[in-house]
Amino acid sequence: MPLLSPINNQIRTNMKLYAEQYKNELFHNILPFWQEHSLDKAQGGFLTCLERDGKVFDTDKFIWLQGRQIWMFSMLYNEVSPKKEWLDVALHGADFMEKFGRAEDGTWYFSLTKEGKPLTQPYNIFSDCFATMAFGQLYKATKVQRYADIALNTFNSILERIQNPKRKWSKAFEGTRPLKNFALPMILCNLSLEIEHLLDPAMVSSLIDNCIHEVMEVFYDQKSGLILENVAPDGSFVDCFEGRHLNPGHAIEAMWFIMDLGERLGKPDLIERAKELTLKHLESGWDQEYGGIFYFLDVLGKPSQHLEWDQKLWWVHVETLVALAKGYHLTKDQRCLEWFEKVHQYTWEKFRDQEYGEWFGYLNRKGEVLLPLKGGKWKGCFHIPRALFQCWKVMEKMAETTFKEAV
Amino acid sequence: MPLLSPINNQIRTNMKLYAEQYKNELFHNILPFWQEHSLDKAQGGFLTCLERDGKVFDTDKFIWLQGRQIWMFSMLYNEVSPKKEWLDVALHGADFMEKFGRAEDGTWYFSLTKEGKPLTQPYNIFSDCFATMAFGQLYKATKVQRYADIALNTFNSILERIQNPKRKWSKAFEGTRPLKNFALPMILCNLSLEIEHLLDPAMVSSLIDNCIHEVMEVFYDQKSGLILENVAPDGSFVDCFEGRHLNPGHAIEAMWFIMDLGERLGKPDLIERAKELTLKHLESGWDQEYGGIFYFLDVLGKPSQHLEWDQKLWWVHVETLVALAKGYHLTKDQRCLEWFEKVHQYTWEKFRDQEYGEWFGYLNRKGEVLLPLKGGKWKGCFHIPRALFQCWKVMEKMAETTFKEAV
Repeated sequence: MPLLSPINNQIRTNMKLYAEQYKNELFHNILPFWQEHSLDKAQGGFLTCLERDGKVFDTDKFIWLQGRQIWMFSMLYNEVSPKKEWLDVALHGADFMEKFGRAEDGTWYFSLTKEGKPLTQPYNIFSDCFATMAFGQLYKATKVQRYADIALNTFNSILERIQNPKRKWSKAFEGTRPLKNFALPMILCNLSLEIEHLLDPAMVSSLIDNCIHEVMEVFYDQKSGLILENVAPDGSFVDCFEGRHLNPGHAIEAMWFIMDLGERLGKPDLIERAKELTLKHLESGWDQEYGGIFYFLDVLGKPSQHLEWDQKLWWVHVETLVALAKGYHLTKDQRCLEWFEKVHQYTWEKFRDQEYGEWFGYLNRKGEVLLPLKGGKWKGCFHIPRALFQCWKVMEKMAETTFKEAV
Repeated sequence: MPLLSPINNQIRTNMKLYAEQYKNELFHNILPFWQEHSLDKAQGGFLTCLERDGKVFDTDKFIWLQGRQIWMFSMLYNEVSPKKEWLDVALHGADFMEKFGRAEDGTWYFSLTKEGKPLTQPYNIFSDCFATMAFGQLYKATKVQRYADIALNTFNSILERIQNPKRKWSKAFEGTRPLKNFALPMILCNLSLEIEHLLDPAMVSSLIDNCIHEVMEVFYDQKSGLILENVAPDGSFVDCFEGRHLNPGHAIEAMWFIMDLGERLGKPDLIERAKELTLKHLESGWDQEYGGIFYFLDVLGKPSQHLEWDQKLWWVHVETLVALAKGYHLTKDQRCLEWFEKVHQYTWEKFRDQEYGEWFGYLNRKGEVLLPLKGGKWKGCFHIPRALFQCWKVMEKMAETTFKEAV
């Protein structure tokens, strides 16, 4: 396998071009779209239900997307350039979230009206996760202690609820078929890094170790070689709809996160395994007939209970681009580059809206636009700009490193 | 409009042929499939997750589908012929449901393991509705008082919960945006007719009046001329995802139910309006490009929050056939016949599995099979056999009536 072999001039040039392309798209297409269309200047917070041209088609406000957009603009302020306009967007969202987002017990509602009245109860622990991310990054940008407190209190409340994240809203009858879900250990690790500056280093280290173990061992299914979305508490396979459920994009997203951890911890073996798993999920998740990555599959090939299983979603594809870019950067496995080019071509051709800017989110199996929206209840200012940022940075690093080598 | 005009010889012949076709399909394709594949002889109850060839792919048991299959076989026993084999199927399901289906407070779980252990809490009031239907019909067939008691106790428990059907599992924050849903008033009326033999006639009459008012006035949206799935408590339109939500198949299913009530009450105006609304929903719900009826639409044409919105579902199409058959029978509006022929052709061509028997449930927008299953978490032995039965009976009546007239 051509690991860590030097990359040639042609590839170097391509990396530079990719870096430019991803960076330009981020700053000249995606961010302006959200800056122009999503700020609710009358009532505060972000309007995320945007039609193709950016027109608002629904005014409900979803805590996931409020938090993610605050995080996005704070992160750019912290990592790219301390532009006042970016911080202003983050603060605009944070004011609204802080004022209206929480129930009496400090947990975060799922959605609010445009005026900030609670619409959906705090049943969804990921609302809290994205609130933690938002206020953790915003604290980094502003050093306002109140934001640190919100992030830390929310994080602690998540830890308290970890065994029963849905609380009274859980519909599962306790004890009959206990299952644990892949998303939570994954996101906890992410969160602990996001607010590392507020946590005890020993805790961060233990959360990272636990996350790597859960993702790479507990949820990893030996038989299929794939990562399952739900397993028994001891990690064993459960033959039911939830137990057979595969979410290739989710597993691949986790893999670039594991690669980051591998780099941080200096563990090339971990990186190698994450890269191999990226390729494995991509090969089994790729639609051989129409291209693109399936949304959901069943590990035993049985019919999914999700009617949207064959659709092609924006976040699945852009997260895959990040994993492949990082996989190539860190291992120089030629297959990552080949797959990157294939997924890049599909993604930019099918999802990008040439006419009105930003990208479509939902395509049918054949790659045709299923919903013409640019934002909705689940799609906001997050996966696309984060992936563009990540790809830009990785590609730039590759172009620079090899340039230095060449000099 | 050619109302109540006599039907000619050609149409009469067609009606006879349709009657044969629907009857044959019921008795020689659909019922045998479920009798052969769905009975769990080891553990009791029905296995409804069946692959294309009838092989079981999942063993969880869903109360909706247990109840509906018990109802189906009891109803055939009561209405068609007292065949022991049909009653045996119903009793096989009822034993299991009676033994394992209820929580301590008498409400019905949503799902059980194959052994009957509760899996999903009794959060869904429609589990109780289908249990009422099941035991009401089974009582008619057996005259076993225990079944009448189960039906009546369940019905009373539904009435008690009617203001808060999801109980503690409701995720809506109380008071911010109260909405009421179309399904419950509809089903309550249906239930009161199903257990009419156990209820006070004044109560049945009041439930019928209320149902007609709710369906034809409260949920009817003047502006669009369509029936909304969710409205404010006073029946007004609410501009949010749920408020804009249209389910053409659901509205059309309700219309044949209203036609039945119109016939029962001797109200031709009501029948006329239900027939007009059937045609209206069909015209606005029909996919002009690929044929078939959309699953969900938005009354303002905004993007749906349901990714499966453009799919073609079995129950939508067979319920529409019933509404059109009844509409034609009761009003002789030629458009009902034209639409019946169009929907009949689409439905039989696309949904029916020529190779393995029974019908597919889920097609994509283009009418291609999306999931190869014959039964699952939501598709069981219900909509298709009920619709075949209804169409057969209506067509037979038309053929006979006109034959008598001709004589």
